[in-house]
Amino acid sequence: MRAVVRRGLALVLDEVPEPTPGAGQVLARTLCCGICGSDLHAVHGMDAMVELGRRTGEPALIDPKQDIVFGHEFCAEILDHGPGADKRLKAGTRVVTMPVVGTPAGFETVGYSNRFPGGFAEAMVLTEQLLLPVPNELSDVQAAMTEPFAVGEHAVAESDAGPDTVNLVVGCGPVGLAVIAALKARGLGPVIASDYSPARRKVAEAFGADIVIDPAAENPHARWGALGVPHSRTERSVMAMMGNTAKRAIVFECVGVPGVIQSLIEAVPVGAQLLVVGVCMQTDAIEPFLCINKSLELKFVLGYTPDEFARTLHHIAEGVFDVRPAITAEVGLDGVADAFRALGDPEAQCKMVVRP
Amino acid sequence: MRAVVRRGLALVLDEVPEPTPGAGQVLARTLCCGICGSDLHAVHGMDAMVELGRRTGEPALIDPKQDIVFGHEFCAEILDHGPGADKRLKAGTRVVTMPVVGTPAGFETVGYSNRFPGGFAEAMVLTEQLLLPVPNELSDVQAAMTEPFAVGEHAVAESDAGPDTVNLVVGCGPVGLAVIAALKARGLGPVIASDYSPARRKVAEAFGADIVIDPAAENPHARWGALGVPHSRTERSVMAMMGNTAKRAIVFECVGVPGVIQSLIEAVPVGAQLLVVGVCMQTDAIEPFLCINKSLELKFVLGYTPDEFARTLHHIAEGVFDVRPAITAEVGLDGVADAFRALGDPEAQCKMVVRP
Repeated sequence: MRAVVRRGLALVLDEVPEPTPGAGQVLARTLCCGICGSDLHAVHGMDAMVELGRRTGEPALIDPKQDIVFGHEFCAEILDHGPGADKRLKAGTRVVTMPVVGTPAGFETVGYSNRFPGGFAEAMVLTEQLLLPVPNELSDVQAAMTEPFAVGEHAVAESDAGPDTVNLVVGCGPVGLAVIAALKARGLGPVIASDYSPARRKVAEAFGADIVIDPAAENPHARWGALGVPHSRTERSVMAMMGNTAKRAIVFECVGVPGVIQSLIEAVPVGAQLLVVGVCMQTDAIEPFLCINKSLELKFVLGYTPDEFARTLHHIAEGVFDVRPAITAEVGLDGVADAFRALGDPEAQCKMVVRP
Repeated sequence: MRAVVRRGLALVLDEVPEPTPGAGQVLARTLCCGICGSDLHAVHGMDAMVELGRRTGEPALIDPKQDIVFGHEFCAEILDHGPGADKRLKAGTRVVTMPVVGTPAGFETVGYSNRFPGGFAEAMVLTEQLLLPVPNELSDVQAAMTEPFAVGEHAVAESDAGPDTVNLVVGCGPVGLAVIAALKARGLGPVIASDYSPARRKVAEAFGADIVIDPAAENPHARWGALGVPHSRTERSVMAMMGNTAKRAIVFECVGVPGVIQSLIEAVPVGAQLLVVGVCMQTDAIEPFLCINKSLELKFVLGYTPDEFARTLHHIAEGVFDVRPAITAEVGLDGVADAFRALGDPEAQCKMVVRP
């Protein structure tokens, strides 16, 4: 089959063997697959990711020197069932799934594995029990957005966002948009969205952000007071003396470059909760004294649960939010390497989808 | 009155004017006052502390160039009431209190103020409404420990420590001991306590730590598995498949020097909650990628609520825990400067108390 292979530090379009479904697995034809920011990191950062896995006690299942086919945000169609399958979903069914395969050696991620090619290939092997059927009215591309939007659902579920919080989303790439969508799906607000890119601010607006800010023109942290969030302990005490309920700041860091966390530590109000969703791969500097003085909480979140994944598909299918404004282009397998380059410009592209 | 004055970067014993109680205040005779790690920091770090306050939006009420009398962990006796006092507690009553005075300009901390001398002086001005009477059977020194032990009560209240957690306390100075005491007061365990100092390990044992570890001899993080806490996601999945409930790691950082937070990020199990209670005054390096990969939570905590303060006095008075093993020496005002030096050696001293 045709696949975009990460080989060395390059992405090359090549023929690779079609995978064979084992027990409890299905063979599926890839209908489409989104390109994730982690994929961009992984072209050059695969060694670091493997080393990180080792340091977190995971078995080392990936060899960065061997071929890897990326792609974990997919919609696929069942082609065939492996041995002992329960065939709950028949061949021809369109499905989405958490990109996970259990093996005797441990779990592997479809799309970050030497054995399980991801969605930048014509076919994949998936875990039968995890498959969710895609409702008829959903397009392949909408369904494929379940995975990246589940990341936002998880971040919000892990946060203390609620009726008495004001929620700031820093960075309106796909991760930030997923957070905005999940906040609005719960009826939460106000949601302030901040991004330097006019294009991304426009998409944030389409996703229902209540206030959209260009941080080059306006400090997003200047809004807290007017929205009922006291900035300092003294302000909080004054509000309490006046009988006003203080709201709390919930801040979603969806940028993932060094310095952003500390810039937020510096700027956010006392008692804020920071959800770190953006993946910063470098060592970063923080000031613990400032964090303590402000009683901040830094919560680092990753992935999603099966429930959050299913809920996200449900939200997309029911029209709770519309993922389409995030999609800026579709390419074939021969366009993947160029797409990886194009995604470097936030003004030009947001979420690009591959159709093998 | 006699007081130990921070003047420039030195502590000098001098005569200073006795403060005058304003409206809603009392004049109190200092019976005793503990020396806090923050006091040690503040001799040389007062400028940094003031600058930090400014950066958190607090009004700048302290001038580090002017005299400051430290001491915020005290037991005192009411001498006189200011104008308009309700005299709920009569002159002669022994009291403890949160070291806070409200002024028209903002809140000031008794012991970190140019206007409100702390407990390293013969007398203080305190806020009448915040005073808690000390039960007769409690010694002055035991009562004075309400403040530092309330810090532990707050840290535990802010944590997710509960029946399904295993709790590690890193550093068994006064802050770590207060955390151990608060955990055991709630009937929580196991509590693992770790400290390089044999003397402090012995005190940790007296405070009821279930497992006391010398990190030079044994890695405290080697114990998680045996106590039911999976280290990695793979281990967690295996436990779930076997029908075993995974416990969660709650880690209290009570050291407060650069590098400790990252060393914990590196060592703790996946999904751990880190309570940062130790005050690290320097910029520190962390690896966000590792935090994300492990889905860690870093919660920075400071101070306590009035309820937590009162509960701590109640615990000490009821014998829920005994603070006395933490007290290693008592000194007069003429011994304060030497005591500050002596506290540099964890093996020699833990909590020193001043009797003016």
